[in-house]
Amino acid sequence: MIKMTNKSVKKVVLAYSGGLDTSIILKWLQITYNCEVVTFTADLGQGEELGPARDKALLLGIKPENIFIEDLREEFVRDYVFPMFRANAAYEGVYLLGTSIARPLIGKKLIEIAEKVGADAVSHGATGKGNDQVRFELTAYALKPDVVVIAPWREWDLRSREQLIAFAEQHQIPIAKDKRGEAPFSVDANLLHASSEGKVLEDPAQEVPDYVYSRTISPEDAPDKPTYITIDFETGDATAIDGVKLSPATLLAKLNDLGRDNGIGRLDLVENRFVGMKSRGMYETPGGTILAVAHRAIESITLDRGAAHLKDQIMPQYAELIYNGFWFSPEREMLQALIDKSQEFVAGSVRLKLYKGGVHVVGRSSPYSLYDQDLVTFEEGAVAYDHRDAAGFIKLNALRLRTLGQRKKKLGL
Amino acid sequence: MIKMTNKSVKKVVLAYSGGLDTSIILKWLQITYNCEVVTFTADLGQGEELGPARDKALLLGIKPENIFIEDLREEFVRDYVFPMFRANAAYEGVYLLGTSIARPLIGKKLIEIAEKVGADAVSHGATGKGNDQVRFELTAYALKPDVVVIAPWREWDLRSREQLIAFAEQHQIPIAKDKRGEAPFSVDANLLHASSEGKVLEDPAQEVPDYVYSRTISPEDAPDKPTYITIDFETGDATAIDGVKLSPATLLAKLNDLGRDNGIGRLDLVENRFVGMKSRGMYETPGGTILAVAHRAIESITLDRGAAHLKDQIMPQYAELIYNGFWFSPEREMLQALIDKSQEFVAGSVRLKLYKGGVHVVGRSSPYSLYDQDLVTFEEGAVAYDHRDAAGFIKLNALRLRTLGQRKKKLGL
Amino acid sequence: MIKMTNKSVKKVVLAYSGGLDTSIILKWLQITYNCEVVTFTADLGQGEELGPARDKALLLGIKPENIFIEDLREEFVRDYVFPMFRANAAYEGVYLLGTSIARPLIGKKLIEIAEKVGADAVSHGATGKGNDQVRFELTAYALKPDVVVIAPWREWDLRSREQLIAFAEQHQIPIAKDKRGEAPFSVDANLLHASSEGKVLEDPAQEVPDYVYSRTISPEDAPDKPTYITIDFETGDATAIDGVKLSPATLLAKLNDLGRDNGIGRLDLVENRFVGMKSRGMYETPGGTILAVAHRAIESITLDRGAAHLKDQIMPQYAELIYNGFWFSPEREMLQALIDKSQEFVAGSVRLKLYKGGVHVVGRSSPYSLYDQDLVTFEEGAVAYDHRDAAGFIKLNALRLRTLGQRKKKLGL
Amino acid sequence: MIKMTNKSVKKVVLAYSGGLDTSIILKWLQITYNCEVVTFTADLGQGEELGPARDKALLLGIKPENIFIEDLREEFVRDYVFPMFRANAAYEGVYLLGTSIARPLIGKKLIEIAEKVGADAVSHGATGKGNDQVRFELTAYALKPDVVVIAPWREWDLRSREQLIAFAEQHQIPIAKDKRGEAPFSVDANLLHASSEGKVLEDPAQEVPDYVYSRTISPEDAPDKPTYITIDFETGDATAIDGVKLSPATLLAKLNDLGRDNGIGRLDLVENRFVGMKSRGMYETPGGTILAVAHRAIESITLDRGAAHLKDQIMPQYAELIYNGFWFSPEREMLQALIDKSQEFVAGSVRLKLYKGGVHVVGRSSPYSLYDQDLVTFEEGAVAYDHRDAAGFIKLNALRLRTLGQRKKKLGL
Repeated sequence: MIKMTNKSVKKVVLAYSGGLDTSIILKWLQITYNCEVVTFTADLGQGEELGPARDKALLLGIKPENIFIEDLREEFVRDYVFPMFRANAAYEGVYLLGTSIARPLIGKKLIEIAEKVGADAVSHGATGKGNDQVRFELTAYALKPDVVVIAPWREWDLRSREQLIAFAEQHQIPIAKDKRGEAPFSVDANLLHASSEGKVLEDPAQEVPDYVYSRTISPEDAPDKPTYITIDFETGDATAIDGVKLSPATLLAKLNDLGRDNGIGRLDLVENRFVGMKSRGMYETPGGTILAVAHRAIESITLDRGAAHLKDQIMPQYAELIYNGFWFSPEREMLQALIDKSQEFVAGSVRLKLYKGGVHVVGRSSPYSLYDQDLVTFEEGAVAYDHRDAAGFIKLNALRLRTLGQRKKKLGL
Repeated sequence: MIKMTNKSVKKVVLAYSGGLDTSIILKWLQITYNCEVVTFTADLGQGEELGPARDKALLLGIKPENIFIEDLREEFVRDYVFPMFRANAAYEGVYLLGTSIARPLIGKKLIEIAEKVGADAVSHGATGKGNDQVRFELTAYALKPDVVVIAPWREWDLRSREQLIAFAEQHQIPIAKDKRGEAPFSVDANLLHASSEGKVLEDPAQEVPDYVYSRTISPEDAPDKPTYITIDFETGDATAIDGVKLSPATLLAKLNDLGRDNGIGRLDLVENRFVGMKSRGMYETPGGTILAVAHRAIESITLDRGAAHLKDQIMPQYAELIYNGFWFSPEREMLQALIDKSQEFVAGSVRLKLYKGGVHVVGRSSPYSLYDQDLVTFEEGAVAYDHRDAAGFIKLNALRLRTLGQRKKKLGL
Repeated sequence: MIKMTNKSVKKVVLAYSGGLDTSIILKWLQITYNCEVVTFTADLGQGEELGPARDKALLLGIKPENIFIEDLREEFVRDYVFPMFRANAAYEGVYLLGTSIARPLIGKKLIEIAEKVGADAVSHGATGKGNDQVRFELTAYALKPDVVVIAPWREWDLRSREQLIAFAEQHQIPIAKDKRGEAPFSVDANLLHASSEGKVLEDPAQEVPDYVYSRTISPEDAPDKPTYITIDFETGDATAIDGVKLSPATLLAKLNDLGRDNGIGRLDLVENRFVGMKSRGMYETPGGTILAVAHRAIESITLDRGAAHLKDQIMPQYAELIYNGFWFSPEREMLQALIDKSQEFVAGSVRLKLYKGGVHVVGRSSPYSLYDQDLVTFEEGAVAYDHRDAAGFIKLNALRLRTLGQRKKKLGL
Repeated sequence: MIKMTNKSVKKVVLAYSGGLDTSIILKWLQITYNCEVVTFTADLGQGEELGPARDKALLLGIKPENIFIEDLREEFVRDYVFPMFRANAAYEGVYLLGTSIARPLIGKKLIEIAEKVGADAVSHGATGKGNDQVRFELTAYALKPDVVVIAPWREWDLRSREQLIAFAEQHQIPIAKDKRGEAPFSVDANLLHASSEGKVLEDPAQEVPDYVYSRTISPEDAPDKPTYITIDFETGDATAIDGVKLSPATLLAKLNDLGRDNGIGRLDLVENRFVGMKSRGMYETPGGTILAVAHRAIESITLDRGAAHLKDQIMPQYAELIYNGFWFSPEREMLQALIDKSQEFVAGSVRLKLYKGGVHVVGRSSPYSLYDQDLVTFEEGAVAYDHRDAAGFIKLNALRLRTLGQRKKKLGL
């Protein structure tokens, strides 16, 4: 039996970015719950220094032993991004799940710290209309069923930017000058992507203003000469660029640079949130976009048709599970087992041409290639493929259709 | 009971392009089967004049009443291409099925003519290693279960280019100069695409030489300024470009022009054939690539999540059916019913930016839009969405995960 | 924009059974919301007289023009049960969805009456832990997006049987003697089934006591001689028993009699509720169990393999949608379009042997049969099937497996 | 590159039952291919002595070192039957795949022996119209890509029973008296099932004559008192009956006895063969039928909903793969990985009532049960489930449906 804890929490671990919003939450937790606050700040490659977050936490009265800061970049890419890319996962056909895939890792760390420090609650700064609250909380509940989750945006009565600023001022929370006004859009970022949504992006009929992009230059500004690169793969994961072995996070960072410089990975999308409404977002996934193309290319010569089609078939569901926050669910793990089973020989090299926003496969090779030039040659030689087999193959495939045709004829249809 | 006809056919309808290969087939049929040959030549937008095909058929002794020539472009786009694009169909993630979708239409016409002229057989020029033989023949068998299918490439003993040329010379079949030697690659084309494969394309590690492309200029040669266009949709089908209503075939032709000029729609692919081997092909689908992006965009604001995800889920199977030649199968028709059911309100306008090989959605709007700005606004107003609902939503979604977590805890895992 | 109505409702339509619980709800609505209550009582074949419900509503102060009573049996079977059985729907492999399928119809009627009488709210007696609340409310919201749904069991503070009885006594609600105490289990019933759950059924290790069953005699008590029947189908729906044409509801009632007498259709199940927990229920679906077996049997000779397998593949999802309450969703309607498309020739006769809980197919015949004795005869005749075709069929199906085998060999695996 | 061997084989391994048909094949191979024949006879629980097979092989001139006889019963159940039952596999809704699952094991052994004795070919006695030829040969080609497969029934010109008998007489092959005439039906049997098809079973409108059944008594002849048994499971596999631990094959044999005595597991079916036609078969799977019910029951309390529904969803495809002969394919292995991943905690006990053809679950319990009585109790206590959460859960699930409803209203639909 799972006991419902009442809301008198003693210690809460907060996913703390060091920014204004989570600083307000930090203070609000102290006041509202009169509890000890533990902060957790992770480097997932969002491109911000973590030092200031520590300073700010100290300033807001967090005890040094309650401040947790961790560089998760390698774990993030190795254990979350790469497994997901093995699946060629894309939500609603195109979204590479850059935000979705980071949440379970942060949630998991929150719970690990909660277990370590004996906290009974966790808290996060995701709003009440988005998917991220779901992703954080499903993770937390899955890993610590009796945890109390505090989602301030769903609980407090701070209803506007003005009220937030007033609260911050009242509690001596430092406010950066550019944070006083309403942000024209909100951003999430990690090593895989940056996403923006809200305000100036809310009308899906209007083109995304150029100033919203932060991770890529525009295709128009990209070089007039294509860039050629080679990516190597082993058991489905990228391991080297242009022959240079790189760790997962370093490799993705390198691909991000390549993508940024060639205007690659911008996506303007109206998507369906798990909580039931449509939203319009802008995503930049420079390295991920390159990686996705390359992974399909190496699979194209190393993966059997049956395996490849099965993967394609279950992919939308796999992507939906991640989007909806079910990373730590039995069904995601089962699908992962299926996917991973297929990747043993997904190894070799893919050559790509990057040009003004485009990623074009121009070559692939592998010691495990299933592509057999002899089999596809038009002229027939002493090979396994006998043209006459095709007749029997077609005849038996046609048999049920002929029977149906016969019925139609009989019925005069 | 379906009777097997023996091979003493009286009249055969041949899918005749007027080119050297099908001219050889024509003659070979006359000789080998000693039967009357009826030719069928279709304009599917392959970009060739049909007049010469008639002349050549006459020259080869086909009676005028046995020469059938038909412009199928509108039927092709309206009844085959558009229904398929409603599904966002892509084989193995990327191939837009340009060749696959034309075969059932040609096959259907062959059978219609066979019924009209009282022919007992049909014949085609597809080779014994490819998918097209399957697509032609499944169609033929489905629509006329007792038809005899003659596939010369599987039957004759002409084993090399030299032998083919010798046969042609022996039988006074005119040979264009550039057809004497082995072609460096083979091409299939229609209004939706051109595909090339074989010879110079056979090594998947080698980049496709530029001279292989016929339908698009290279992204590098495309204009330095983006082209903006608007496509209108009704019930899932494109109906206008930049506000100008166009018939299906005219619209696709216009998109092809736009795509060609902007270097859009090139695809270098290793794919899995139905007959069991991998092959490497190069596809150019300029207009189709634009259309595919636009269709997903108009769906993004007009299609409900449940409908959209169900479509995504069944898409790979739908695409595989078309690729494998099962257009005229009950399961394709069932999936089409499912897809078409979803398209009633897929209407509105999509604005696109075409730039050097890229197709970027920059706006979409619809009188049937399900995107509701009030629902996604961050600040909460007097709207349907109550932040507190999210708590319950997450709690019940988490319940089974918590129960699982509880079990793990109990077991000390 | 969907406005959130506040809870000051003016008129509410209540799904009213005439029983104690919904009578208490009726009174509670009057008191709590100070609003006009409209009652709706439906005959779905639950086996209770509707007259007393009218009397009781009058007694509780409902105006005659606010009392709606309707016989929905034919509509229920024709438009809900039969379409579902076309899909061979079974939740979690076995549950024939007897409760689930009735809820959307009741919900739809509630909304129709609400529109007619100008009510702004609907109410029901489903508890806060079950699936039925979801089914009622998803239906209501889908059909009238601005409706207020009042779910007393989630709102009131009546926390025990004693408190309910006290409330009833306080408000002069008549209490049948056997309703004073806690019921040993709760029952839902309609023409398709009766279900029981709770209390005495809560331990899934304990056999269901015999007194819980109401719709069937036990297999042990059933006749020692089998009963043979024939069911005729047209376009996927049953139309006659033993040659006698019957309306949908009459036919199902007749099958219920046959099932009851032969101990057919008992199911003891632990299932997964949509709201996240497992529950143990006992179902009796006598006629439905017979119908399900018969429908698969008529499909077995009239449905093509491609169609049949596609149906099998999407069935679990279709069943889940109905179980979860999404009857009025685009995805259920899309799946229904797919299913219905397949049923055109699902017609003919099925002969069944009913014996002590078992339903055994012993024969099927159809003017549309695709079963062709000539095709399956072992000896080969002048038929469509040439044994040698099988060699080519197998060879090409094996080609990719051989290529894989070759790779393994090359790698020394 | 896979070389096509020509048909000059040196040594062939034959799947040899010792019966008349495979004895004729043995002789025919010697004569036709002038090659050394190696026989393989397996005990899969078909219920026949293997000694006579050895004697007959010797009599027909097979060298002792070329006679292989193996008891595969434990391997069959442990590595084939049990993994398949973890999936709850049923082809076309009902067929438990008793024949299909045995073929890959036999095929694998043929290849193992071929490798051991240096044979270049294998042969089997499956006919050219059935599924078994496909299952044998796909297995053989997958495991030894360069093997030659000899399928006499597709090659020879023995076209009738008379010709077979004449051939046997001519070559001194002993003929049992009852084998002279045409068998009224053909049988396949192993530890999992017996199947019968052909001749007297060919009219699907006619009830299966009682003499066709060999593994079960009829329900009518079964005891008038139910038999209660308990089956224990560990990681998804049955391990004990009534508390007595049994090896896989022993356990299945015991269940067969129980099933036989209670008239359980008869199935009269028209199914769709992979080779394209429908066929009518009769199956007896006494123990398997009990096992299938028990496995679902133990899963019902130990498997999470997400896991269970995913399994249900992929099951038809998994079953089809086995039916079609793709046991040794990457996609079957991927699906198996998915399935096996789910079975870790599928452990506990299921109590069943066996009665006159019926298998009824009457209890299940497990140390890993996810069924939580506190969660489903109607009265609310201090538990995890808060009734009010349901309101939010429903609201957000309804949100997209309300938006759709709003659109309809706006459009006046």
